[in-house]
Amino acid sequence: MANSFGKLFTISTWGESHGPSVGVVIDGCPPRLPLTATEIQAELDRRRPGQSDITTPRQEEDRVEFLSGLFEGHTTGQPLAMLVRNADARPEAYAEMKDKFRPSHADFTYQAKFGIRDHRGGGRSSARETIGRVAAGAVARKILAQAAGIEIRAFVTRIHQIAAPWLDHFPTLAEVEANAVRCPHGPTAEKMIECIKQVRSEGDSVGGAIECRIRNVPPGLGEPVFDRLDADLAKAMLSLPATKAFELGSGFAGTLLKGSQHNDAFVAADGRVTTATNKSGGVQGGISNGAEIVFRVGFKPTATIMQPQPTVDLQGVPTELKGRGRHDPCVVPRAVVIVEAMAALVLVDHWMRHAAQNQTFKF
Amino acid sequence: MANSFGKLFTISTWGESHGPSVGVVIDGCPPRLPLTATEIQAELDRRRPGQSDITTPRQEEDRVEFLSGLFEGHTTGQPLAMLVRNADARPEAYAEMKDKFRPSHADFTYQAKFGIRDHRGGGRSSARETIGRVAAGAVARKILAQAAGIEIRAFVTRIHQIAAPWLDHFPTLAEVEANAVRCPHGPTAEKMIECIKQVRSEGDSVGGAIECRIRNVPPGLGEPVFDRLDADLAKAMLSLPATKAFELGSGFAGTLLKGSQHNDAFVAADGRVTTATNKSGGVQGGISNGAEIVFRVGFKPTATIMQPQPTVDLQGVPTELKGRGRHDPCVVPRAVVIVEAMAALVLVDHWMRHAAQNQTFKF
Amino acid sequence: MANSFGKLFTISTWGESHGPSVGVVIDGCPPRLPLTATEIQAELDRRRPGQSDITTPRQEEDRVEFLSGLFEGHTTGQPLAMLVRNADARPEAYAEMKDKFRPSHADFTYQAKFGIRDHRGGGRSSARETIGRVAAGAVARKILAQAAGIEIRAFVTRIHQIAAPWLDHFPTLAEVEANAVRCPHGPTAEKMIECIKQVRSEGDSVGGAIECRIRNVPPGLGEPVFDRLDADLAKAMLSLPATKAFELGSGFAGTLLKGSQHNDAFVAADGRVTTATNKSGGVQGGISNGAEIVFRVGFKPTATIMQPQPTVDLQGVPTELKGRGRHDPCVVPRAVVIVEAMAALVLVDHWMRHAAQNQTFKF
Amino acid sequence: MANSFGKLFTISTWGESHGPSVGVVIDGCPPRLPLTATEIQAELDRRRPGQSDITTPRQEEDRVEFLSGLFEGHTTGQPLAMLVRNADARPEAYAEMKDKFRPSHADFTYQAKFGIRDHRGGGRSSARETIGRVAAGAVARKILAQAAGIEIRAFVTRIHQIAAPWLDHFPTLAEVEANAVRCPHGPTAEKMIECIKQVRSEGDSVGGAIECRIRNVPPGLGEPVFDRLDADLAKAMLSLPATKAFELGSGFAGTLLKGSQHNDAFVAADGRVTTATNKSGGVQGGISNGAEIVFRVGFKPTATIMQPQPTVDLQGVPTELKGRGRHDPCVVPRAVVIVEAMAALVLVDHWMRHAAQNQTFKF
Repeated sequence: MANSFGKLFTISTWGESHGPSVGVVIDGCPPRLPLTATEIQAELDRRRPGQSDITTPRQEEDRVEFLSGLFEGHTTGQPLAMLVRNADARPEAYAEMKDKFRPSHADFTYQAKFGIRDHRGGGRSSARETIGRVAAGAVARKILAQAAGIEIRAFVTRIHQIAAPWLDHFPTLAEVEANAVRCPHGPTAEKMIECIKQVRSEGDSVGGAIECRIRNVPPGLGEPVFDRLDADLAKAMLSLPATKAFELGSGFAGTLLKGSQHNDAFVAADGRVTTATNKSGGVQGGISNGAEIVFRVGFKPTATIMQPQPTVDLQGVPTELKGRGRHDPCVVPRAVVIVEAMAALVLVDHWMRHAAQNQTFKF
Repeated sequence: MANSFGKLFTISTWGESHGPSVGVVIDGCPPRLPLTATEIQAELDRRRPGQSDITTPRQEEDRVEFLSGLFEGHTTGQPLAMLVRNADARPEAYAEMKDKFRPSHADFTYQAKFGIRDHRGGGRSSARETIGRVAAGAVARKILAQAAGIEIRAFVTRIHQIAAPWLDHFPTLAEVEANAVRCPHGPTAEKMIECIKQVRSEGDSVGGAIECRIRNVPPGLGEPVFDRLDADLAKAMLSLPATKAFELGSGFAGTLLKGSQHNDAFVAADGRVTTATNKSGGVQGGISNGAEIVFRVGFKPTATIMQPQPTVDLQGVPTELKGRGRHDPCVVPRAVVIVEAMAALVLVDHWMRHAAQNQTFKF
Repeated sequence: MANSFGKLFTISTWGESHGPSVGVVIDGCPPRLPLTATEIQAELDRRRPGQSDITTPRQEEDRVEFLSGLFEGHTTGQPLAMLVRNADARPEAYAEMKDKFRPSHADFTYQAKFGIRDHRGGGRSSARETIGRVAAGAVARKILAQAAGIEIRAFVTRIHQIAAPWLDHFPTLAEVEANAVRCPHGPTAEKMIECIKQVRSEGDSVGGAIECRIRNVPPGLGEPVFDRLDADLAKAMLSLPATKAFELGSGFAGTLLKGSQHNDAFVAADGRVTTATNKSGGVQGGISNGAEIVFRVGFKPTATIMQPQPTVDLQGVPTELKGRGRHDPCVVPRAVVIVEAMAALVLVDHWMRHAAQNQTFKF
Repeated sequence: MANSFGKLFTISTWGESHGPSVGVVIDGCPPRLPLTATEIQAELDRRRPGQSDITTPRQEEDRVEFLSGLFEGHTTGQPLAMLVRNADARPEAYAEMKDKFRPSHADFTYQAKFGIRDHRGGGRSSARETIGRVAAGAVARKILAQAAGIEIRAFVTRIHQIAAPWLDHFPTLAEVEANAVRCPHGPTAEKMIECIKQVRSEGDSVGGAIECRIRNVPPGLGEPVFDRLDADLAKAMLSLPATKAFELGSGFAGTLLKGSQHNDAFVAADGRVTTATNKSGGVQGGISNGAEIVFRVGFKPTATIMQPQPTVDLQGVPTELKGRGRHDPCVVPRAVVIVEAMAALVLVDHWMRHAAQNQTFKF
């Protein structure tokens, strides 16, 4: 079940970069939800390459098709399968990869693990695999929005060494989408874009960080002791290509404080309990406390660069490899929608789990 | 299954801080492994409070008892259950917690989620819950050591704002256990101890960071695309009390580099493929690459402090709470053994999963 | 997870016949349920040997102890662990079993599978393992009774070749417990008891069949397409020692009918839909339809008999083995409570699953 | 995960009778297995309607298409997804079913459970759903055959009241496929075919029984105590449409015997341990013992009949319904391949589980 995620709202993805298709099936989707392909497509379009001049010029149309689970425009509670055909395949661009391991890619480890690999465009390890996640995440987001007005907003806070200042409000979608780099702080966004263009001209690449905020989450989501909300968010984020780090709320910086500085005092407000500060990032003891959920994810620089790099071939003989084809010099802006999708999947699943144990029987 | 961890080597834990006991049952333990209670006890003794003058003076003997699964000193492949009785209970010390929510603890969220909670010593959210993890982790470590010479070593790299320099070798157990703070760099350890004593005298607390290294892991462990080795390590670590952050290899710092600086070149050495650097932290594409696995975990300052703090009670009325009893001003040194235990559990499980899919059938 | 059962109300059992203990931990138990050890003990006492002159004279007190998960007499939503110590161990009675495989027992297969086995009293394959199931089942039964008035009643319908007539009503507990063989048809029960006494005097054994009926189950429980209610009941029953067969509703006999004879016409009654007949046994398409659930389970004759039998030893050399010690010449009467327990576990789990998917979100 | 089956070799199916498609994705497929669409198609063709004059004349071409997981004719260890488009849709034939519940079908229970249903051709509850199972089962069968020469052969032993004599050998595929009813006993097969034609002329239907035998299974497959091999086979079979009963080895008939008659004596033969008889049906204590695995499955008469039947509509008002369209008067012959597929899925999964726990580490 390594290609499945979620215990009650379970997605299973399939597909390789240059195989026939990528896709996903959702098992456990609540019935009676109105749903159209347009809603899924909107999220896929945000993930798609070729959106701006700082992303790869590859044109992937990525049209989603429902394979099952809808009836008269509503979910039926049966498996909801969605398919995207692979179109823009240029396998010849990847011939060299057949025999040489690209540094800091998954070529070597897939070969070592499975004894066989589809080398074309990274095969299963390609970021195209996230298409299924985004499609399923679009369903999850709609459920959360309809059921409780829960909103999930991710945005870029740092590209390479250019960091945006702390954002003092929950950003609108328009603010995030206002620029190609998806940083809601305009002046910083301009510098980020400049940086990406610069490294691209050098044939190099950069990484960065994404912050995600979630509001209107009720207290009670998350399952102690292993399936904590923060633990499942961490797993979700580290399961994304190119991620190296995760932190919730105060994160690593919070570990530099004393308890008297770090603790979030409880206060009464509008007839409900909340906290005066939010170092906890909306999760305490693995369970949501009703405050805004805040976490950050670190993405390494794109492994594919347009410079010659030393490596070895399948026989372990030293050789050299230079990136070709069309690649993002920085994946972080496009990863924003993927981070949101995974967060939505975690939340819907935990909402269902919470309800099952705590609200099914009345004693 | 929120209290279970692992797909093939599965542990299920139970128990509260001041209930009758804490315990664990391992389902899927390989048969024929020689095992004694002494080996389990050795790890529990490292976790135990009251080991030094910088930890809580609570005396918990924490004697482990096998409940099942052993026959003539060997595992049988049947469930291996282990029990530790709770002894040093002083429930009266916690009476105030019944009605007041301790800031940055799980009191409020458990109450919100379950509508009932065992308030004594934090109940299920107490760090005593990790006893079962450590006991099961001791079995996992023995399996890894016997089967492949895999070694797991965690140690403290930072307490509050006192950071140790990068450790240029894989430390011995003796180096880690040489001081009360479990930092193998002696001069830094002294400052850390001083720091902890100082904050304790102020009735305050501090956090810090632990690094974990694992060597002799063969290439191939980890399951794309969701159950990546790094994703499961992240989940394991974020499932521990007081953790706020996780990073693998270069981590957040690596996201500041360019691809040309960050990529790990493959090189041939001694007839096998390895990497010239290890920014990847031993995992690429979610799968171990044979290099040392390196990750770090951030722990927040202990939430319980001996200072009055504002909070609310069960009715949402503002009140004040002051920590009592015996608490660690810093949990990081004791968490070292828990980090190691969780890492061992992840590795054994992935080893079994890898073998099942890739080595069971020969084609 | 071979020793776990249930997806949301999950039990994990441990223990061998002559090891330190048998036990169970429930993960996912709903919080706030009032619960006492007396309620668990009542079910264990029904399972216990030595209750009458047709069962084994072994005296096993089987006192249950709560290890965790209760607070002030209520469940807390945390793992609920229960322990029963093994007491009446006479390992010397089993010395011969160490080297010889008992026919139609699990000795050979455990040895073949695990390469080691606890031979004493059958070890893990002993029916003592079902103690944990009965204890957990008692919790499940209470939940079902409190939440919806669901009643589960199993009873013996056949011992060897002595079959009771079809029971035209839902029997009371008193009717079932009225005789040692747990057959609510008194005249048949007398013959059954006579039969068992006769085979015991011959040093032989017999099997039989149990019917289970469940009423007040609402329509909607059961998950297509694999986790059907009937499929999960079948698995639950075949997971019990000595079972060889399962049938729902009309069962094998129904396969002798034509569609026009077998179909259950829908009728309207008291403002709700029901069926005129119940060949379906209360389940259609894997989902409960509101009618009484009816199924039957076949138990083979006890494998241990007091007659010499040919077999082989660990080295594969032909030898002879004769049963010793104290054994039930017929396990069927004692299995009644175990069948009920497993049925309760299946129902609670499916109730929670149904609610999670279909009642958590309102669209 | 109700639409998934298997723990390590996991299939997830999707699709409705008259939706866009049916399909399946296999997660955990071993890598490096040579595989072609032709091999899958061969099994699908055996399942397909319209094969003979005793099945439905519906023509469904059911062409399988690989969506992912193959590279240069071999499995890669990545998810293997397969799709079959729905073609021969005549939704107008099902208009009446929109408002009326067909007796002994899943219409009422799906409506009750999900509050919405795709009524066309039974939607998800249609036997078309088994296409995915057969496609995945074809992969599983190939693995078993290549890895260990394991053969699985199901065949019809009874149609309505016409039973074939006990088959004293393991039948060849040719014997089973020699007639339209898939009963290897020719004279009985003729009577069965006559019977089916007769009930079809009456607008009625019949059921029957299938026996399945599996040879060359090594000892050791099956996981005590819940995931027994026989328990998982029982679940697999009861998860098929129209099944009502399962029995292993001696089954219900065996419960009429005494222990001295029923026990399978162990004997030494050709240097290995086997049993003189096989009442156990190849499984003891939930684990394969090396003998032939033998089980039987009971199928009820087809619920759709061409006679008027009383029922109720969506509002609970009494009405009448008469089957239309093209239906099998007996599903049993076509179910043979589905029984084989499910058996193959259970065996591959258990083989992988057994290897993972017992053969991964050497102590």
